Amino acid sequence: MTFKTRIKDIRESKWFSNLTTGIILFYAAALGFKTIDKVAEPYGLLFYSIDMFITVYFLVEIIIKIYAEKSIKDFFKSGWNIFDFVIVVITLIPLENSSFAAIARLMRIFRVLRLLNARPELKKIIDMLIGAIPAIVDIVILMFIIFYIYAIVGNFFFEELKSGLWKDFLTAMLTLFRVLTFEDWTDVMYEAMELYSWAWIYFVSFVIIAAFVFFNLFVAVIIDEMQKINSEHTDEQLNREEEKIDLLLEKVSQMQEEIRELKKLKT
Amino acid sequence: MTFKTRIKDIRESKWFSNLTTGIILFYAAALGFKTIDKVAEPYGLLFYSIDMFITVYFLVEIIIKIYAEKSIKDFFKSGWNIFDFVIVVITLIPLENSSFAAIARLMRIFRVLRLLNARPELKKIIDMLIGAIPAIVDIVILMFIIFYIYAIVGNFFFEELKSGLWKDFLTAMLTLFRVLTFEDWTDVMYEAMELYSWAWIYFVSFVIIAAFVFFNLFVAVIIDEMQKINSEHTDEQLNREEEKIDLLLEKVSQMQEEIRELKKLKT
Amino acid sequence: MTFKTRIKDIRESKWFSNLTTGIILFYAAALGFKTIDKVAEPYGLLFYSIDMFITVYFLVEIIIKIYAEKSIKDFFKSGWNIFDFVIVVITLIPLENSSFAAIARLMRIFRVLRLLNARPELKKIIDMLIGAIPAIVDIVILMFIIFYIYAIVGNFFFEELKSGLWKDFLTAMLTLFRVLTFEDWTDVMYEAMELYSWAWIYFVSFVIIAAFVFFNLFVAVIIDEMQKINSEHTDEQLNREEEKIDLLLEKVSQMQEEIRELKKLKT
Amino acid sequence: MTFKTRIKDIRESKWFSNLTTGIILFYAAALGFKTIDKVAEPYGLLFYSIDMFITVYFLVEIIIKIYAEKSIKDFFKSGWNIFDFVIVVITLIPLENSSFAAIARLMRIFRVLRLLNARPELKKIIDMLIGAIPAIVDIVILMFIIFYIYAIVGNFFFEELKSGLWKDFLTAMLTLFRVLTFEDWTDVMYEAMELYSWAWIYFVSFVIIAAFVFFNLFVAVIIDEMQKINSEHTDEQLNREEEKIDLLLEKVSQMQEEIRELKKLKT
Repeated sequence: MTFKTRIKDIRESKWFSNLTTGIILFYAAALGFKTIDKVAEPYGLLFYSIDMFITVYFLVEIIIKIYAEKSIKDFFKSGWNIFDFVIVVITLIPLENSSFAAIARLMRIFRVLRLLNARPELKKIIDMLIGAIPAIVDIVILMFIIFYIYAIVGNFFFEELKSGLWKDFLTAMLTLFRVLTFEDWTDVMYEAMELYSWAWIYFVSFVIIAAFVFFNLFVAVIIDEMQKINSEHTDEQLNREEEKIDLLLEKVSQMQEEIRELKKLKT
Repeated sequence: MTFKTRIKDIRESKWFSNLTTGIILFYAAALGFKTIDKVAEPYGLLFYSIDMFITVYFLVEIIIKIYAEKSIKDFFKSGWNIFDFVIVVITLIPLENSSFAAIARLMRIFRVLRLLNARPELKKIIDMLIGAIPAIVDIVILMFIIFYIYAIVGNFFFEELKSGLWKDFLTAMLTLFRVLTFEDWTDVMYEAMELYSWAWIYFVSFVIIAAFVFFNLFVAVIIDEMQKINSEHTDEQLNREEEKIDLLLEKVSQMQEEIRELKKLKT
Repeated sequence: MTFKTRIKDIRESKWFSNLTTGIILFYAAALGFKTIDKVAEPYGLLFYSIDMFITVYFLVEIIIKIYAEKSIKDFFKSGWNIFDFVIVVITLIPLENSSFAAIARLMRIFRVLRLLNARPELKKIIDMLIGAIPAIVDIVILMFIIFYIYAIVGNFFFEELKSGLWKDFLTAMLTLFRVLTFEDWTDVMYEAMELYSWAWIYFVSFVIIAAFVFFNLFVAVIIDEMQKINSEHTDEQLNREEEKIDLLLEKVSQMQEEIRELKKLKT
Repeated sequence: MTFKTRIKDIRESKWFSNLTTGIILFYAAALGFKTIDKVAEPYGLLFYSIDMFITVYFLVEIIIKIYAEKSIKDFFKSGWNIFDFVIVVITLIPLENSSFAAIARLMRIFRVLRLLNARPELKKIIDMLIGAIPAIVDIVILMFIIFYIYAIVGNFFFEELKSGLWKDFLTAMLTLFRVLTFEDWTDVMYEAMELYSWAWIYFVSFVIIAAFVFFNLFVAVIIDEMQKINSEHTDEQLNREEEKIDLLLEKVSQMQEEIRELKKLKT
């Protein structure tokens, strides 16, 4: 058993992936505790050591993974591997004392995203979520057009309001997003109604139109998913049945022919 | 190749529709930027030029589209063409210095709606949305009756409240719409409860009834859509299968008849 | 043609039911306008006349409906007729100058409910809504148990809070209903957290549990409705198909028997 | 009829379970009324007696249930029985005058949970709710990762904000949960935007991502449930049909063989 096969065995083994998962979770917890001031200060050295340990562990882990492949190229063929590699490398750069120190520290939380690579069910869900995007892209465009027109109209009429919620196009878009989540939307409306008493038409129509579009988006996605399942599942069986019935029809037709021949022979 | 066929080719060509889409998007962005005061003032002339250019481009585009048709009548047969034409013509009227200048400027955002005509998927979604209306029209009527009764009762009891949320029928309707979106509805309720301690019954019952009706509306629409798909899809196949089984039955019956005849001949 | 058949024709005629619908809608609009003070005062006499007219019209209408039946008993067999009758009679009682005048005036809005009797689609929706109740009654009970326990616990711990939101059991239930609608629920939570820092567990667990139960309620109702449709629709066809296949099997078995007899004769 | 069979009859009888249900409901109502100060004080003795009576009744009831079983072991085989037993025993401990008196009093509300054991439909719903957990466990993990990353980032940037909403990791998680319920989320955002004008990206992206994940969770659960029903219901019938068609095919093939033999005999 060569050294390479031994490394391969390690990479494939359940305990290695479980260890990595465990270490990521432990690290995630440590990052969480570090944010509590009472805990962070006295145990500063401990957190520093954990950080060092994780950096080294991740480095060793990725080297094992790369080494276990036939060539470095094979390793980089998987998108998830590239994702892992980038996270490991970025957190290696010594920025602790540079002006980017804060950003470097922040980058570390993306290490938690490596959990996605550890649990196949999560990868499946993410594939599902990405797969759901095309079904809704046109509704998003439509939503954008609605937002766009309302934002321009809102900015046109309500620009001078003291709250500054409509002061330019982008702010108006944000305000409309807020209205869409029903977050204190009547405050926005009542302020506008002081200037123009008809402003409630603007807000109520926006809420109804946006909600109606969302509602139909929902129904469309459910129906879409169901059609997929129907075509996959029941239809397969129905198709098999139909083929058998076709075969039956053929056989029966042949038989009928043969019986007729028999009859002819007889007479 | 006559001049007319050349114009026709332009109208049918992919680059022409893409160019129009691109110009609309560019114009939409420009309209957005124009709302930011810092940008709008120094670049006033630029925005004026863009406006001029768009007006001319749209005019040329619609002339091309009309000319490419056999007759002007054919052009106006499509609702979308009429929609385009009205938008182009309205923004042509020179109102810049009249008292309608502001409204004329606002009308321009409807040019963005021409995007709907450029992307067929959006037209499909809008057809779907319009198609969903009949399924919910009766629930909307029911909702209106609920709103109506609650508005009259609310106005009757809470008219004198300081907030003025129930001061007349229309305002009460608006307040109920607000309650339906759960927007600070308890503020409205607590104010009413200071006058009548039983007022919570009014609000809680409204929230539960309205939510229950909406909930069932949702379920009804999903079920309705699914039935449509079922009848289109699986049933078609089931019908085909049934026809084949009927044919089989007929053939087998014939065969049985023939075999009996054979037997009779024999004996 | 007797007088009675003429009355029957009127009751059955489309224009009569349309006229009633129209008058109800007109009356609903009048009731709405009456709530606006500016309109109500100068036109007091007009509104009084409308009221008189409606009362008389409804009386005549219900007399026609009763007279058109074979006997008075037949009229009262329909729940909707009793509903109509009660509304008409109640608004006949002369309470204008009694201490019940206000309540009598309020009763009139229930006349709008007669719209439900005029539009069959609305009756169908109401039947559907009532039909959906059994499917959710147990989830409502479960919801009540959750509310009950949280209300008692909330009252136990938070009774002394200044806001008085937990001062007794009923108030606590109302507060929990408010939390369920996410209405300023963090205000309630932050106040409680000042007393007990662990209070967020109470609120977050309530929100998650209640939302989870509601979520499943939703799914259960949709699934339930779908099963009904499946059993009504596709299954009917599948059952028919299966019967035919059974018939086929029987026939083919008979044929096989007969062929064997033929063969025996032969040899 | 021995004493034991008589006890068994009592346990099995409808009136005994109804009596228990009724007493639990009565007790629940009493607990509710007790929270109203005006009622609690003058009727203190009454509430004390009710409490005593319930404690004795529950004790007798559970002794009947245990005695009716063949052995004590059989009784403790059911999880619901253990649940009942623990609730009855815990409320027996005399803590009235100890420092745990308050907690002991609170424990009593769990007696209401015994209702779950009385109504089989509720047991079924709870089984359904528990059964729905595996289907969403991975989405909950994904949600947690999203919360985790946003909480760390939020704590990193907004830690110093006066509201203290981001002062440590746990508080940030709670704040994000609040944002997820749309509860005054713009207040949180506007405060953050005073420090960093780009903060709206953080909030809007969180709302959109979290809502999108939830949305798909919903669709996934509905689809999942539907697939179960499909496989249970229609497929069963389809499978039966297919078996019959297979049998038909076999029979027809045999027949064809036999007819060919007949023909051979003939010639």
